[in-house]
Amino acid sequence: MTKIKTIGILTSGGDAPGMNAAIRAVTRAGICNGFNIKGIYRGYDGLIEDDIKPFTTENVSGIIMQGGTILKTARSKAFMTQEGRDKAYENLKKEQIDALVVIGGNGSLTGARQFAQDYDLCCIGLPGTIDNDLYGTDTTIGYDTTLNTIVDCVDRIRDTAQSHERIFFVEVMGRDAGFLAQNSAIASGAEAAIIPEDSTDVDQLAKFMERGIRKSKKSCIVIVSESPKCGAMYYADRVRKEFPEYDVRVSILGYVQRGGRPTAHDRILASRTGVGAVEAILQGQRNIMVGIHNNEVVYVPLSEAIRSDKPFDRKLIEVLDELSI
Amino acid sequence: MTKIKTIGILTSGGDAPGMNAAIRAVTRAGICNGFNIKGIYRGYDGLIEDDIKPFTTENVSGIIMQGGTILKTARSKAFMTQEGRDKAYENLKKEQIDALVVIGGNGSLTGARQFAQDYDLCCIGLPGTIDNDLYGTDTTIGYDTTLNTIVDCVDRIRDTAQSHERIFFVEVMGRDAGFLAQNSAIASGAEAAIIPEDSTDVDQLAKFMERGIRKSKKSCIVIVSESPKCGAMYYADRVRKEFPEYDVRVSILGYVQRGGRPTAHDRILASRTGVGAVEAILQGQRNIMVGIHNNEVVYVPLSEAIRSDKPFDRKLIEVLDELSI
Amino acid sequence: MTKIKTIGILTSGGDAPGMNAAIRAVTRAGICNGFNIKGIYRGYDGLIEDDIKPFTTENVSGIIMQGGTILKTARSKAFMTQEGRDKAYENLKKEQIDALVVIGGNGSLTGARQFAQDYDLCCIGLPGTIDNDLYGTDTTIGYDTTLNTIVDCVDRIRDTAQSHERIFFVEVMGRDAGFLAQNSAIASGAEAAIIPEDSTDVDQLAKFMERGIRKSKKSCIVIVSESPKCGAMYYADRVRKEFPEYDVRVSILGYVQRGGRPTAHDRILASRTGVGAVEAILQGQRNIMVGIHNNEVVYVPLSEAIRSDKPFDRKLIEVLDELSI
Amino acid sequence: MTKIKTIGILTSGGDAPGMNAAIRAVTRAGICNGFNIKGIYRGYDGLIEDDIKPFTTENVSGIIMQGGTILKTARSKAFMTQEGRDKAYENLKKEQIDALVVIGGNGSLTGARQFAQDYDLCCIGLPGTIDNDLYGTDTTIGYDTTLNTIVDCVDRIRDTAQSHERIFFVEVMGRDAGFLAQNSAIASGAEAAIIPEDSTDVDQLAKFMERGIRKSKKSCIVIVSESPKCGAMYYADRVRKEFPEYDVRVSILGYVQRGGRPTAHDRILASRTGVGAVEAILQGQRNIMVGIHNNEVVYVPLSEAIRSDKPFDRKLIEVLDELSI
Repeated sequence: MTKIKTIGILTSGGDAPGMNAAIRAVTRAGICNGFNIKGIYRGYDGLIEDDIKPFTTENVSGIIMQGGTILKTARSKAFMTQEGRDKAYENLKKEQIDALVVIGGNGSLTGARQFAQDYDLCCIGLPGTIDNDLYGTDTTIGYDTTLNTIVDCVDRIRDTAQSHERIFFVEVMGRDAGFLAQNSAIASGAEAAIIPEDSTDVDQLAKFMERGIRKSKKSCIVIVSESPKCGAMYYADRVRKEFPEYDVRVSILGYVQRGGRPTAHDRILASRTGVGAVEAILQGQRNIMVGIHNNEVVYVPLSEAIRSDKPFDRKLIEVLDELSI
Repeated sequence: MTKIKTIGILTSGGDAPGMNAAIRAVTRAGICNGFNIKGIYRGYDGLIEDDIKPFTTENVSGIIMQGGTILKTARSKAFMTQEGRDKAYENLKKEQIDALVVIGGNGSLTGARQFAQDYDLCCIGLPGTIDNDLYGTDTTIGYDTTLNTIVDCVDRIRDTAQSHERIFFVEVMGRDAGFLAQNSAIASGAEAAIIPEDSTDVDQLAKFMERGIRKSKKSCIVIVSESPKCGAMYYADRVRKEFPEYDVRVSILGYVQRGGRPTAHDRILASRTGVGAVEAILQGQRNIMVGIHNNEVVYVPLSEAIRSDKPFDRKLIEVLDELSI
Repeated sequence: MTKIKTIGILTSGGDAPGMNAAIRAVTRAGICNGFNIKGIYRGYDGLIEDDIKPFTTENVSGIIMQGGTILKTARSKAFMTQEGRDKAYENLKKEQIDALVVIGGNGSLTGARQFAQDYDLCCIGLPGTIDNDLYGTDTTIGYDTTLNTIVDCVDRIRDTAQSHERIFFVEVMGRDAGFLAQNSAIASGAEAAIIPEDSTDVDQLAKFMERGIRKSKKSCIVIVSESPKCGAMYYADRVRKEFPEYDVRVSILGYVQRGGRPTAHDRILASRTGVGAVEAILQGQRNIMVGIHNNEVVYVPLSEAIRSDKPFDRKLIEVLDELSI
Repeated sequence: MTKIKTIGILTSGGDAPGMNAAIRAVTRAGICNGFNIKGIYRGYDGLIEDDIKPFTTENVSGIIMQGGTILKTARSKAFMTQEGRDKAYENLKKEQIDALVVIGGNGSLTGARQFAQDYDLCCIGLPGTIDNDLYGTDTTIGYDTTLNTIVDCVDRIRDTAQSHERIFFVEVMGRDAGFLAQNSAIASGAEAAIIPEDSTDVDQLAKFMERGIRKSKKSCIVIVSESPKCGAMYYADRVRKEFPEYDVRVSILGYVQRGGRPTAHDRILASRTGVGAVEAILQGQRNIMVGIHNNEVVYVPLSEAIRSDKPFDRKLIEVLDELSI
């Protein structure tokens, strides 16, 4: 194994608040430990197209509080092909990048793992996704910010729900994982959450609305994980049909959930895991994701991080049930 | 004209942040000047159904910073009928309410004016609507808060637009008035606004996107006033068809715009006009709306306030054009 | 041991955002499980003075997003005396309260432990303090909100520091524990933190300021834990004396850090531990604090929770050192 | 008069949120109208020291939402001397700057006026100050943001004041003008404001606190304009002496008030007046300040703008009196 001299950084997949704090941390900790740093633009696409620039500590000045990613990001189709990955590897060699730090979610780290295996590379992943669906880290960079953004939006919607005595179905991100929906429901005092981990029938919908009525609030908020078939619109339509006496409304939060200034938690998570990525490289670690578990920096094999079965704590469903009486 | 002893307060139409500050102001200034205060719940519906309670200064304690309306609100169909208004008047007499303060938008004040004329009543309007479409007052209660909420949302969306180099069409409230769209576009540094006061063709859409490209940002944000036919979806589809090279996305802000803690401006506007409403009653004014024009409390005849032609300053279109180069 | 029928709840010590969410959770989970709930006002003082009211689910409606505590709070001197505690116990008996839930920090839980021992009571503690200095729980209710408030303030101060090229010493809460100072420094991109766990001499001060200069920012922000002797003023004066070429300013954040809408994290922590407190009572647990460790609800003996040596992760000092180059 | 080709921009005095939006507006509107733009760093000091760079539209990209000023700012002592101003004029000539746009408060525009007169220059002022003490414009750039920041802080402090039943004296900026104190008191529902325009004796202090008690809140918040002698500390001490039964606390907001993301209002004000400054230059206007009065862009002679007697609406004192019962 050759000594690593230059670290390349890229962000990939959906942007998440805190990605910039992670870029800053890898860059500064890298420079502090004697590495050269190169920024790769537009995710794997930029690697394939050699859209790469050397980074100094000034490049990452003043970005810790900015949402999005200064390196830009993309969901690369080209990188899914052998040809694309070959080209990417060629550019890595050309730019003399010895180690690659990939900040992204499940799909991006799956790509990193494949790339690392095929070309015998040092790839380090950082968990950058609002979905919180990576295994081995307590939270992912962006999750806490998005959770707070959702709660802030639901607090606003509650003003209208109560003023007009309406039922609101609020659709939030998290197609495959109910973390955002379940936890934002608890945090916003919603009456219920409809999540992919759990099925919801018409009897339950009736129960949810009765909770709102029972509390003499006469309004009700149900958080729904986005879903191609069974999103907020679907449930609103069912309720309108079955319980025509209610005034039912839908709010799909959409892209508002993604950007914005990262919370303290996400900035710290990004900073600590970014420093951890550089340390991992110094230690000779390869093909791991850096996470925080139990308040300690941990190294998780990429193969494990991308496992599809991050456990959902069903106890949270009971918590919401007890608190929404 | 009998001496006025008891003031009834109601909120009507869509809820707007600052309505609670207005309720508080009328209640406290009323009590301070020797009046009895009664709160009428659920707008004109509550007046028709006698859902009315006496208010003391404690009823309005701690509400100045709350969005929505503690009196609840509705768009009353019953009040549009003669029978409904008769019933409402009966309840006013029964509750010994001599003056009615209506906090609401164009439709609500139109109802107030009719009611005042038909029954020879003292009705005072307060401009409570996020749409800013009432004549004679510089801004309406709720408008500044909603404007800031939109700008906050667009700031977030910009993070994603820039990170992914996308075109976003962001739909905001204001079906009949472009104040929110035009001003939020200026404040958020958007490339363009599509407003009901102005038509937009495909050549202009091309110009808007070139602005984003010209600034070497490669992303572009267009704010669109909501519209049954020509909302953000409509323009996004047109762009996708005409310019398939762009990655076009839509965000419909919806109900997120309505609630939330009112800004300082809206709390002050609500407080000053609320005190002004009580003063108007003391002065023997009737059937006027209290507004603020040129930083002074003014009384505008209801008939004038609800005029449909609140002027839109076309100079703002030029401002946006010059700043989005 | 008699069967527990009625739970009393009080908040004690400095108010912390999320206390209301905890009151709501204990109340609702308690009622849901068949208990009577009584709210005790003004901490232990209210227990001594019998300022106690029965609580229903409506009493805690709409409070999840409110800072402070609807039960009010105090640092009780009377409860430190035997006489005071005797009187408190008398009132517990009179009000038929069988179990006491105390939401507070180190001092309040120390009081709870003594009270529980002396009178053989069931006392359950919830970690309600912005200081994060309770052992056995990863964070305390209020800590995350205060951390975010500090970071928000430092983001603002940075605007002025950079615009005027100044050195700022920003004093934050946490007299005995550097968690807030160290983590807010990492999250806000400050150049350094001065914490009680670590000493700081004039050479280090020089190093801190050089970091700001080296980054060609010409401004520098140092976060200082409050301290009777060595607060922000002390260090600012030393720098003014030793390095008169700098424009040095002080900002003492003070009470601004304490209130405000709780973050999602604090609302969820309060909700889960509040439900956990009721479960603990059902299980026959006594004299424990309910915390969250490693994302699971845990029961920590009160004697352990109030240990003075909650470990400070010195690794965080290195993280800040590497990132502020 | 020679044709103007190049516009120089500087920010001077205390930084104010929205200054960046103004720099952006002058730069873009200037370029849009065919002018060259030069950015002058660190206020008049940078003019004297020739710290000047050409600006393109990219220089001002992405700054509309940033607090502070990218041009940096200073209170220049050198510019108060004839020698300094001579040097400044020399550099203007050298850099071929024909018109100077100064964004700042009373002191900065007084300097601009003197400079314009002495050297027969085209100076255009923009009202950039949080104090709102410039004549002829309804508000100044930064005032609305600071007002909202104060209200946000007081909302937080109220949580603690109510939880502990305390009296708080909160000191805010505005040494010579009570706009911030009076309006933030109205907007935050404070019991009173102590402003330079009005004297406050011990009887009034007693009255203020009784308001808090009378409302059965048992807490009280008084906003105090900063003052070298009679600030929040002074009044707190007097109350502690005269009314020892109260638990009195002080919060001095300080630098937290100055920075932060500008509100929609301040961004729009800065954008419109920035465009207005370029138009004024095109029209051949000189030595005026661009403001907004009655929702229209207006040109106010600098001599008038800096008049010390911007009228304070004493009616606002009555509004607060009536609403704090």
